[in-house]
Amino acid sequence: MTDLKRSWVDSANSADTPFPLNNLPYGVFSTGGEPRCGTAIGDQILDLAAMEADGEIDAGGTLQTGSWNAFMAQGNKAWAAFRDTLTERLAEDGDESLSKYLVPQTDATLHMPFTVSEYTDFYAGKHHAFNVGTMFRGPENALPPNWLHIPIGYNGRASSVVLSGTDVIRPNGQLKGPDDEMPRFGPSQRFDIELEMGAIVGTASNGPISVAEAFENIFGYVLLNDWSARDIQAWEYQPLGPFQAKATATTISPWIVTAAALEPFRTSTPEREKPLLDYLKEPGPMLYDIDLEVTMAPDGGAETTITRTNYNVMYYSAAQQLAHHTTSGCPMRVGDLLGSGTISGETKESRGSLLELSWGGKEPVELANGETRTFIQDGDTLTLKGAAHGDGYQIGFGDCVGRLKPAREV
Amino acid sequence: MTDLKRSWVDSANSADTPFPLNNLPYGVFSTGGEPRCGTAIGDQILDLAAMEADGEIDAGGTLQTGSWNAFMAQGNKAWAAFRDTLTERLAEDGDESLSKYLVPQTDATLHMPFTVSEYTDFYAGKHHAFNVGTMFRGPENALPPNWLHIPIGYNGRASSVVLSGTDVIRPNGQLKGPDDEMPRFGPSQRFDIELEMGAIVGTASNGPISVAEAFENIFGYVLLNDWSARDIQAWEYQPLGPFQAKATATTISPWIVTAAALEPFRTSTPEREKPLLDYLKEPGPMLYDIDLEVTMAPDGGAETTITRTNYNVMYYSAAQQLAHHTTSGCPMRVGDLLGSGTISGETKESRGSLLELSWGGKEPVELANGETRTFIQDGDTLTLKGAAHGDGYQIGFGDCVGRLKPAREV
Repeated sequence: MTDLKRSWVDSANSADTPFPLNNLPYGVFSTGGEPRCGTAIGDQILDLAAMEADGEIDAGGTLQTGSWNAFMAQGNKAWAAFRDTLTERLAEDGDESLSKYLVPQTDATLHMPFTVSEYTDFYAGKHHAFNVGTMFRGPENALPPNWLHIPIGYNGRASSVVLSGTDVIRPNGQLKGPDDEMPRFGPSQRFDIELEMGAIVGTASNGPISVAEAFENIFGYVLLNDWSARDIQAWEYQPLGPFQAKATATTISPWIVTAAALEPFRTSTPEREKPLLDYLKEPGPMLYDIDLEVTMAPDGGAETTITRTNYNVMYYSAAQQLAHHTTSGCPMRVGDLLGSGTISGETKESRGSLLELSWGGKEPVELANGETRTFIQDGDTLTLKGAAHGDGYQIGFGDCVGRLKPAREV
Repeated sequence: MTDLKRSWVDSANSADTPFPLNNLPYGVFSTGGEPRCGTAIGDQILDLAAMEADGEIDAGGTLQTGSWNAFMAQGNKAWAAFRDTLTERLAEDGDESLSKYLVPQTDATLHMPFTVSEYTDFYAGKHHAFNVGTMFRGPENALPPNWLHIPIGYNGRASSVVLSGTDVIRPNGQLKGPDDEMPRFGPSQRFDIELEMGAIVGTASNGPISVAEAFENIFGYVLLNDWSARDIQAWEYQPLGPFQAKATATTISPWIVTAAALEPFRTSTPEREKPLLDYLKEPGPMLYDIDLEVTMAPDGGAETTITRTNYNVMYYSAAQQLAHHTTSGCPMRVGDLLGSGTISGETKESRGSLLELSWGGKEPVELANGETRTFIQDGDTLTLKGAAHGDGYQIGFGDCVGRLKPAREV
């Protein structure tokens, strides 16, 4: 575990800042004009687009695009060189003349940091799969037979990925209770969160790649909330999987935390009950130790932490998922986003969805103001938070926030 | 049913040409240089990009992009006006001076006519769903309970959509027979076609839209072959649907046949066994009468027609599918591609996949050269063909062709 790297930006030297020099996450911000590429440092944003325009730094012109896709497409040698330069110039003995490129985060509006090419969501949390499977099929048949062999995933909808802070509208959809003769169309009554990490593909591939190659192709990570309508899903998902239940919105945190920044926090996936096929074996630790939590705040009320868990509980890493994704020859593109699957720990307090926390609605979750919840109510704000904790510093992600608005009139 | 519209381009006046003046499908072609937007007329392509560059026609500059997305984004009033102008100028008493913009189709290479934003595949053929369900669950439980109520669909992989003529490589993947204790990794042994139509979204939407609005938002149609690895699918698809089984390739025909050209061929979806929910009811006929067939040719051998069917057998129209797609609030974008689902008729000879034609591999299909097939062999070429037949003319799609190459070494 490395120590805090000190910067001439004072606010970056606190143990509490999510954005010390060790982090340098990439985002897109504006202060009235066009969205610009920048990096967070302490409580400031360094305006990288302006620096590149002034010839202060060179990223091949990619920082002028208002998105990190073109930068990513330069490949991981360019990523490393750029990060080295930034680290050097922002270090305590670096180049304080760059202070003219600092913008206080409180003055900036954040935008989507990259264009999502396609979005794939996985189901790689074993406790989550076991919990959900137990509710639907009993503990003996909880895990599907393929689950220990395949990082199960489905294609999601890229057009529905939104930035933290975007309101989410409760979806309408087809609903049918087990005793109803016919479905009806109306607002989802079991609208839920899924606490996930999102991995961003930074290097394209056109054919099968190994887990080691996949690891190199991942540019960075965001927090990801895959909003899910459990009742719509229950009626629609057989036989071809979730569709409209998962298409309302998927919220991501605003800063891309690079794989480079997370390097000190690599950890291994757990021991296997069944041997993995060779193509899925990891040559080294490719998961990360990242503390995660979710808070819920009712309309106008204080927030309550409803779960605390860690990314390190996942059964498959993003590298394994990406390698599996290419087995069929499926081309992957810069900007592809891979959701980890819901991250639930072993205990009740570490479950990553309300479906699990309230055990299918049977055990309501208590909030600080005395209210209870099974699923999300209109006006509730859900916030995902995450940070990898080093020695005297942390690598934070910035919050991943969404507030639920009432459904549209049917 | 309208009659043949006669053109000063002689080859467009034959009853046999797929591209009479009534059609005017949009494609992208090249003759050595950059890909250019054009329309097929008889055995020629009219170079619309060159015409626009010369000021001969105005499409807001969109024809200079080597793709039809920007043109589509102008909206359906612009589509209609542009088609009217083209029809007038190519008519028998039109503007023969445009002949300098004609390029023989035999001299041109065709390219993807549009950029696929996202790809969704449906399962809206009742005979197909019934056949497949019967094989897996018996005739009593063949149709899933939701099938008569929901146009069942899943998100596919846009990056895997390829143009007709692109070779397809047999995928590797996880395979597990019912009696195997463990899965193994290797080439799919049950690689198949799916005969489908693809509908192209030409107008974006950001929230739920009606079936009538959805119909107006569809720009045109292509033939679509959703190559499918049945054995990979069987092992992976529970509980989240097909993933790598459908990610190798989806081939589309090269010309976008507009909804306007298909207008005379509108037909109704069938009577309903169960009443549809209001949001899925069609205000008029929104399906089309399009004759379809598939041929198979072994390596170096002649082609055999292995099925003949019609798009008019589908249970849900593309407009119904698109409307359903938006119920959750899912944003749709210009260039979204919706696969109809496999188009199988009632009879054995009209089934749209080898899975059905060979009844799960038990009843091999006979080819003209005496060989038989259950699934596709390396070197086989599969071709989808389609045309709507009017009085003395047809609206053809151009062939949708793919040849299967051997799997990569594992």
